[in-house]
Amino acid sequence: MNSIPLRVTVWGENRHETSHESVAKLYPNGMHEAIAAGLREHLGDTVTVGTATLDQPEHGLSNDVLDRTDVLTWWGHAAHEEVSDNVVARIHERVLGGMGLLVLHSGHYSKIFRRLMGTECGLRWREAAEREILWCVNPGHPIADGLDEYFELPHVEMYGEQFHIPPPDELIFISWFEGGEVFRSGCTWTRGKGKIFYFRPGHETFPIYYDANVQRVLANGIRWAAPASSAAYNPGGRNITAPLAALAEDHTVDASIH
Amino acid sequence: MNSIPLRVTVWGENRHETSHESVAKLYPNGMHEAIAAGLREHLGDTVTVGTATLDQPEHGLSNDVLDRTDVLTWWGHAAHEEVSDNVVARIHERVLGGMGLLVLHSGHYSKIFRRLMGTECGLRWREAAEREILWCVNPGHPIADGLDEYFELPHVEMYGEQFHIPPPDELIFISWFEGGEVFRSGCTWTRGKGKIFYFRPGHETFPIYYDANVQRVLANGIRWAAPASSAAYNPGGRNITAPLAALAEDHTVDASIH
Amino acid sequence: MNSIPLRVTVWGENRHETSHESVAKLYPNGMHEAIAAGLREHLGDTVTVGTATLDQPEHGLSNDVLDRTDVLTWWGHAAHEEVSDNVVARIHERVLGGMGLLVLHSGHYSKIFRRLMGTECGLRWREAAEREILWCVNPGHPIADGLDEYFELPHVEMYGEQFHIPPPDELIFISWFEGGEVFRSGCTWTRGKGKIFYFRPGHETFPIYYDANVQRVLANGIRWAAPASSAAYNPGGRNITAPLAALAEDHTVDASIH
Amino acid sequence: MNSIPLRVTVWGENRHETSHESVAKLYPNGMHEAIAAGLREHLGDTVTVGTATLDQPEHGLSNDVLDRTDVLTWWGHAAHEEVSDNVVARIHERVLGGMGLLVLHSGHYSKIFRRLMGTECGLRWREAAEREILWCVNPGHPIADGLDEYFELPHVEMYGEQFHIPPPDELIFISWFEGGEVFRSGCTWTRGKGKIFYFRPGHETFPIYYDANVQRVLANGIRWAAPASSAAYNPGGRNITAPLAALAEDHTVDASIH
Repeated sequence: MNSIPLRVTVWGENRHETSHESVAKLYPNGMHEAIAAGLREHLGDTVTVGTATLDQPEHGLSNDVLDRTDVLTWWGHAAHEEVSDNVVARIHERVLGGMGLLVLHSGHYSKIFRRLMGTECGLRWREAAEREILWCVNPGHPIADGLDEYFELPHVEMYGEQFHIPPPDELIFISWFEGGEVFRSGCTWTRGKGKIFYFRPGHETFPIYYDANVQRVLANGIRWAAPASSAAYNPGGRNITAPLAALAEDHTVDASIH
Repeated sequence: MNSIPLRVTVWGENRHETSHESVAKLYPNGMHEAIAAGLREHLGDTVTVGTATLDQPEHGLSNDVLDRTDVLTWWGHAAHEEVSDNVVARIHERVLGGMGLLVLHSGHYSKIFRRLMGTECGLRWREAAEREILWCVNPGHPIADGLDEYFELPHVEMYGEQFHIPPPDELIFISWFEGGEVFRSGCTWTRGKGKIFYFRPGHETFPIYYDANVQRVLANGIRWAAPASSAAYNPGGRNITAPLAALAEDHTVDASIH
Repeated sequence: MNSIPLRVTVWGENRHETSHESVAKLYPNGMHEAIAAGLREHLGDTVTVGTATLDQPEHGLSNDVLDRTDVLTWWGHAAHEEVSDNVVARIHERVLGGMGLLVLHSGHYSKIFRRLMGTECGLRWREAAEREILWCVNPGHPIADGLDEYFELPHVEMYGEQFHIPPPDELIFISWFEGGEVFRSGCTWTRGKGKIFYFRPGHETFPIYYDANVQRVLANGIRWAAPASSAAYNPGGRNITAPLAALAEDHTVDASIH
Repeated sequence: MNSIPLRVTVWGENRHETSHESVAKLYPNGMHEAIAAGLREHLGDTVTVGTATLDQPEHGLSNDVLDRTDVLTWWGHAAHEEVSDNVVARIHERVLGGMGLLVLHSGHYSKIFRRLMGTECGLRWREAAEREILWCVNPGHPIADGLDEYFELPHVEMYGEQFHIPPPDELIFISWFEGGEVFRSGCTWTRGKGKIFYFRPGHETFPIYYDANVQRVLANGIRWAAPASSAAYNPGGRNITAPLAALAEDHTVDASIH
């Protein structure tokens, strides 16, 4: 419908990539660049994809950058606490106003995700190179487009329930792990006008972001999370005149209190 | 993204239009043609819109027609019981398989809506030419695109709570009526791969389907309800081999029972 | 709070028990009696528990019996089609009116469950005596009371996604199976005033209903599904006088149509 | 079932009551005492009800008090910003751990509600002494117990949509206002193990908390929000051994990273 490309900003913490040789070998330009490349490949000229990282000024997420962002993706792990509260507040406001947000893997513990969820967002984990099978339980959802009933990842870090999130609006994927756990791996929420998609796979020591199914899910997620409505939205508290105008004159109020 | 036009079929009972002069004057070609015209005007060449009515063979909804339908809209009122159970079963299967469905106004009591909902779908009503104000409570939803915080209809039939539906997946509009009632006027559900949108306004004795906001909501609804995923979907019960193939040999079962 | 005992009716198909020696050995009085005994043990004098079976007149579910039933549990498997449509309609109406319903294991394919859900309710299955691990993803829910993070069943029939149900109002358990599948094993829905709980474990060839955790979940489910509100409920369509009485005189309507 | 009384703490800001004569006349012992009295009257010896206010040390909500609180009710309006972040964090943790929370009227803008919701929680308002009609749209819910299809309040402050909350898990009441607005007046959410109920009526300049229906809803809300499950809950992130123990030895991991 819309021929103007979606504007995506892929945010990466970009620390493991510089401090661990094995991660650097896997993702020589950083995970954010691998994620961005996958989106460009799957979405072609329907998107423009930029990147931003923790150690840039304002973490690369100035108001100017956010003005040009329809959907933001977030990968963080070791340095959640280093993300500035100001930038978090800025992103929070943008999401409520309609910017889409994809939260990836260990981003479950980021400040922005926890603030939007209102819960602790903890989970069980085990770094054991296990097999993961992701089952699609919502096949009509646009994020599932093109997938089979399930897909596998041969070696992953395990994330297990209980995942301490609010009940998702939509549950799309449930993961099975070799060690005996399950996990709600694809969840969506609406907050204000913004759409949020959490997707589990993505550990830094495995080549997850080169997997074709993972790339497809992220590409689908970008499309789904894009702003889809220009409807009026007024988040603040407001003292309002009645639609039925005659009303105002009918009542007297002790206005000194409010 | 997709340049192939969406294929819409607008179904109308088309009885009041032929039996009541006032309705015939309001909708000289039938309500279904007025609805179809509104969709064509708002959606242009992104859709092709056909119509079908109760008194056609198979109510105009042969398998052939449904094969060429991405989204079906349904308006019925006086003759719900005349709709063939076979056709209802056919539509039911299509919706579960991914065809979108818009249920309009008195269609709340249609066989297909009640079957998909599993509840009685009753409500309070009063034909009193009251003012209705529809408030948008989900401004980020694509169905709300382009709307203000609320819009008004000057003269409508009243529908009031309790509306005996399952809790909707998404609540988009709540109506206010002059006589003191409220109503969940825009509700969505997912059933199988199909998306269902119920929209309240639309009584045959008022020019509702010429209203610009109503037309916009219907056009948005068509886009939203369009099939959005080609993911695998296998609704039947199936005896299945394990993803972990080695398993089958590990266990013995008294297969005589199943 | 309420000292009047809850009245529970445990319904069992009771066919495998009479036709298969291995099942008869496991459940000599029928599965329904094993289920009833577990409820009596866990709930003591807070309940009275009766049973009913397919081959009784009206399947043991006369209006009289249903008048004395606060919560009904349903286990069927081989003979879903033999259940009378009249009895199904009767139960359907009762559930909408507030009677609780627990649907057990292969009851997913019963007429009453499918009618309430509005979907096909199919699933993948494999009778392979696999290990099942049930994870609790909603630990604050009364149905989870007393449970650990997960519990295991050593040998079960596998049920796997996709489970073709409407999105549950609440998801309480997710199962992991040895063969690689997952399943939404504890789901709740509200329909009308009635509460519905689907619980997966329970195959006739395994001693599932003697398991302490399974018994506890069923007992919790009974309490949760019990009618909890005497609020007004009027499911039918009704022509209604406005709360704001003056209104009726303000408008004129072409009453000949409706 | 449980004969130990529920322990309720009613929290009140208690500022308007001391600064505005008209409020002091309406609620001579403070709104919190009026709320507490209503709960004692409706719930009798099934509860013990204490109160706490803003100007007490730790706002009357020490760890010791919270240790003895099953359900907390919250009314604040003019001094939300004076509530200590430490106390808010303490309540937040308790709610996730299972303490029930009733948020009343202008408490929609309190720190604790906004933190749990993750959104701005703004709304439209007008202090106009209008008539409000509250419709029950979920008659089977325990919070609706004993109510009619609707109840009225003759003179209230108006709160109108859009109410900037996450989609509620359950919607129980929708309000109609004389001036043309509607509002989702009774909403529930689960966060962690805790149940949260927001209820709209309650402005300080009207005798709302003496209304029998309002009192009944609050009493029902207390019962509903009471902790209902002792199931295991471990909110923090945890490095975990697999349920299938053999697994640990099968894999090698670069443990230096995590």
